Amino acid sequence: MPSYTAPAKDAQFILHDVLKVSGSDIPGYSELEPEFTGAVLEEAGKIASAVLHPLNVVGDAEGCRLENGVVYTPKGFKEAFEQVKQGGWTGLDMPEEFGGQNMPYVMGTAVGEFFSSANQAFTMYQGLTHGAASAILAHGTDQQKATYLPKMVSCQWTGTMNLTEPHCGTDLGLMRTKAEPLGDGSYKISGQKIFISSGDHDMAENVVHLVLAKIPGGPEGIKGVSLFIVPKFIVSADGTPGERNGVSVGKIEEKMGIHGNSTCVMDYDGATGWLLGEEHKGMRAMFTMMNEARLGVGMQGLAQAEAAYQNAVEYAKDRLQGRAVTGAENPDGPADPLIVHPDIRRSLMDQKSFAEGARAFLLWGATLIDQAHRAGDKDADGLISLMTPVIKGFLTDQGYDMTVQAQQVYGGHGYIEEWGMSQYTRDARIAMIYEGANGVQALDLVGRKLGQHGGKYVLAFFDLVKTFCQENKDVSETFGKDFIDPLKAASKDLQAAGMYFMQKGMKDPNHALAGSYDFMHLFGQVCLGLMWAKMGKAAQEALDAGSDDAAFYETKLATGRYYMARRLPATKLHLARIESGADPVMALDADAF
Amino acid sequence: MPSYTAPAKDAQFILHDVLKVSGSDIPGYSELEPEFTGAVLEEAGKIASAVLHPLNVVGDAEGCRLENGVVYTPKGFKEAFEQVKQGGWTGLDMPEEFGGQNMPYVMGTAVGEFFSSANQAFTMYQGLTHGAASAILAHGTDQQKATYLPKMVSCQWTGTMNLTEPHCGTDLGLMRTKAEPLGDGSYKISGQKIFISSGDHDMAENVVHLVLAKIPGGPEGIKGVSLFIVPKFIVSADGTPGERNGVSVGKIEEKMGIHGNSTCVMDYDGATGWLLGEEHKGMRAMFTMMNEARLGVGMQGLAQAEAAYQNAVEYAKDRLQGRAVTGAENPDGPADPLIVHPDIRRSLMDQKSFAEGARAFLLWGATLIDQAHRAGDKDADGLISLMTPVIKGFLTDQGYDMTVQAQQVYGGHGYIEEWGMSQYTRDARIAMIYEGANGVQALDLVGRKLGQHGGKYVLAFFDLVKTFCQENKDVSETFGKDFIDPLKAASKDLQAAGMYFMQKGMKDPNHALAGSYDFMHLFGQVCLGLMWAKMGKAAQEALDAGSDDAAFYETKLATGRYYMARRLPATKLHLARIESGADPVMALDADAF
Repeated sequence: MPSYTAPAKDAQFILHDVLKVSGSDIPGYSELEPEFTGAVLEEAGKIASAVLHPLNVVGDAEGCRLENGVVYTPKGFKEAFEQVKQGGWTGLDMPEEFGGQNMPYVMGTAVGEFFSSANQAFTMYQGLTHGAASAILAHGTDQQKATYLPKMVSCQWTGTMNLTEPHCGTDLGLMRTKAEPLGDGSYKISGQKIFISSGDHDMAENVVHLVLAKIPGGPEGIKGVSLFIVPKFIVSADGTPGERNGVSVGKIEEKMGIHGNSTCVMDYDGATGWLLGEEHKGMRAMFTMMNEARLGVGMQGLAQAEAAYQNAVEYAKDRLQGRAVTGAENPDGPADPLIVHPDIRRSLMDQKSFAEGARAFLLWGATLIDQAHRAGDKDADGLISLMTPVIKGFLTDQGYDMTVQAQQVYGGHGYIEEWGMSQYTRDARIAMIYEGANGVQALDLVGRKLGQHGGKYVLAFFDLVKTFCQENKDVSETFGKDFIDPLKAASKDLQAAGMYFMQKGMKDPNHALAGSYDFMHLFGQVCLGLMWAKMGKAAQEALDAGSDDAAFYETKLATGRYYMARRLPATKLHLARIESGADPVMALDADAF
Repeated sequence: MPSYTAPAKDAQFILHDVLKVSGSDIPGYSELEPEFTGAVLEEAGKIASAVLHPLNVVGDAEGCRLENGVVYTPKGFKEAFEQVKQGGWTGLDMPEEFGGQNMPYVMGTAVGEFFSSANQAFTMYQGLTHGAASAILAHGTDQQKATYLPKMVSCQWTGTMNLTEPHCGTDLGLMRTKAEPLGDGSYKISGQKIFISSGDHDMAENVVHLVLAKIPGGPEGIKGVSLFIVPKFIVSADGTPGERNGVSVGKIEEKMGIHGNSTCVMDYDGATGWLLGEEHKGMRAMFTMMNEARLGVGMQGLAQAEAAYQNAVEYAKDRLQGRAVTGAENPDGPADPLIVHPDIRRSLMDQKSFAEGARAFLLWGATLIDQAHRAGDKDADGLISLMTPVIKGFLTDQGYDMTVQAQQVYGGHGYIEEWGMSQYTRDARIAMIYEGANGVQALDLVGRKLGQHGGKYVLAFFDLVKTFCQENKDVSETFGKDFIDPLKAASKDLQAAGMYFMQKGMKDPNHALAGSYDFMHLFGQVCLGLMWAKMGKAAQEALDAGSDDAAFYETKLATGRYYMARRLPATKLHLARIESGADPVMALDADAF
């Protein structure tokens, strides 16, 4: 059985030593004193380890089942969900007026990682509800907010997002689901939606579906799409679930992983729905919460990598196999533990340096969202919009690779289901796909975000890196060589790639798009390089200040040096690929494949 | 439902245009005229597509089951296995005197790829039998050969390899299974073996287990291990299966993939076994067939990548989503096919250029094995021994990545089991683990093979690349720039890495071992670069000779240029990691993880 311990100390280091949240002037941040956040993280960690994680393998083995139109979640899920609701974990960063705790988004993110690590399939029920509630919060009428939000913030009712149809995913303009106005402000919704996470289940009194559909006679394509609230049970005048609506589960999909989440085909047969936001502005309503949703998926990449890494470390310390090439380290035992072997170390360091760097990146991103939403900072909004596809695409790709590496540490035991390592990779795999497949993230980054406002936000990012490098090259005698020089070199590669796109992409956009995936990874590397440089600086300063936890900070510095030496040089490869342009990529006729 | 078409034309191109097999003086090669090999490959392709591949998803969904001590394979497997036996496919490269067809190993490899692509789990029953038969052929007494080989060559009886125990995999010296001499030339075998592929099933009259065990009183550790033949049914005097032996299936493992193969825990309770080869020389007996077995696993990496790629191409051509950025290419349809998008192209080109390069690498490797075994060429033996861990480790890592990329092309449809793409990744995953996990391959390469005979074989490899580059820079006007220059640069990186290991590894072997995984990949890249340069040359020469299949050869050149421009530059990243040495990797105490 795999185990999980929430990395609360590491999150605290990032929040306080690196991001210095309680000193920030973002509204609500002054309350984020180390003691307060420490207490929240500790409690969240307990629930994650003791309640959610033991159900992770249960959910995987048992899955969800549909019987006579009713969806049943795996054994224990319902009771655990009650505990999460009771603890107030579902509304951590929601407004107090709707029953939330009004904490900044960064706290929701820090806690979300722990819950996701412990049980991704389970945590999605809550995550989707959060997404749907955010949409109602941003676009709902006062009555809609009053009707739905208190119940959704507490997860008494859960939510879903209905976008995909059998013939259209990314290209939602092709959508066929119809919404016919009934004249009384409601609409008749008909069509089929697929891949609906948490589509139905037995853990809530009601399920509030947010459904994209087209009102007949509206504009063609994506511009004619509207968003509707379609509850499973129509809400009665007294606010309780009443009549059953015309929406049903067609089937539960058989998936590679996240078996504990009910991924449903939803059939809308003249269901009653209510417009959320304006007619034909459904995509805009969806997009306002896309940054958060995509950041949440990037978080899943980190979360599975972290959980898998923890178990790989334990196995590498326990499993005796072979001898250290430099001499036995466990001479009284029959063999040395795996962890003595350099290649096992390499793998564990890849995982560790990724997870810690990714956590910093994610929490930094979350503070930018807070800065944008709570302080109305347009520049922060621009910067996080630019980096959102990077967070989503880079962290989920790399996170998945790390689960594969963790599984590999187990050898054959990683391939059988008994040890639980296969589940981490199977669960992590979905994060590269949903909320926009990673190729679409790369397209969003290069085709849309990069050039926004004349490249203002990417230039701001470069400035940020440059300023950091200028101000911190002398943090210690070796800091410049170990951290600043590699970061500078990586950032230069990113700038060169951006320059290539500007020059060549003008003539032929394929020159930019053929390098989009590499650009997303190049950007991600530089972001993690920057995070490691910041963490290295914070660690060095703590040591210089005579911290009594020197081992912790020394480990941070060593892990950062690993990242800079071993992972960051990938930027050169991405640049080389980008600069080879579109010709090699587009050379063949479709028939030649 | 996924489909599969054997790439027979591509294999023919490699066998004849590139490797020119029928002109080789390796014994048996003169018979490999294009017409003959074409007929064999075409027939093999038919069985693969029509018989084996339809059972691939069946095997995955149904799995094997153990009932009252009897293992049942999925529906249809037994009938298909009969067809494979009847067709003589099981003894393609086995000696005629035992019922084989005596073809060179390269033909077995070419056919093996098709079968593995079509159904890896199924083909393993035959593959393990081949491995066990090869061991008996190499080390058995005349009587053992006469008793077992005719039945195993025809797969009337199948074989298994029993190495791993619960507490030891790589480090077989820790093994506990005992073999007590009974005084009549037989031994009493007791112990438990795990992860035994094809361990038991209902498709053969007998199962011949080759079991590693220790004879009490022998040398400690790996030097005291012997190999035994332990048949499920003891063979009677008339050569038919007789009394049931003391070996039974403890359970069938639940695995991530290859569900159609019965991976068993085998319990030996005083089973009767007969020594194969010499006492305490069991590992040597195993190692003689290791090159072949590992090449066979490398083949599986390619095979799953090829099958997944073919389906990704079909999906990318069929699925309409979005518009080409350079203008609609399917203006009369609601959207353009996925294949118009540059990032989809990138992914498909990654897959295509890998699969074709890997096929050439594998078939070249197989000719070296033939050269070693059939012509007794020690240099060929040295070279293939050196490259075996590269073939195994590089091709399975990259092959797995390619199945993940192919799955990604499907978006959400790649994650649900209905489309079959998840199975390709789940099946491909095991190849990175069994026959020596890839980290162990890297260790074998750098810790053992590289320095053998003073580095003679790696120097021979460098010479081979150098000579090719010198002789072929003017194959066409652009050949030098497109193919030779990148190959030279990559080979230089490989030499620099080798030099680093020599200089630094002398002082501290960790400096070499910390870079071993990157070295394996660096070496693999150079090998595929060499293969692409050879294929590019062959294609150019065919075009210059006025081939009437110009489109085929133009496609080869374009695919090769892609590999050289986009994939081969990875060598620089591997070198940078290697040259960062052991310090970043080994910096932490085990407690700091």
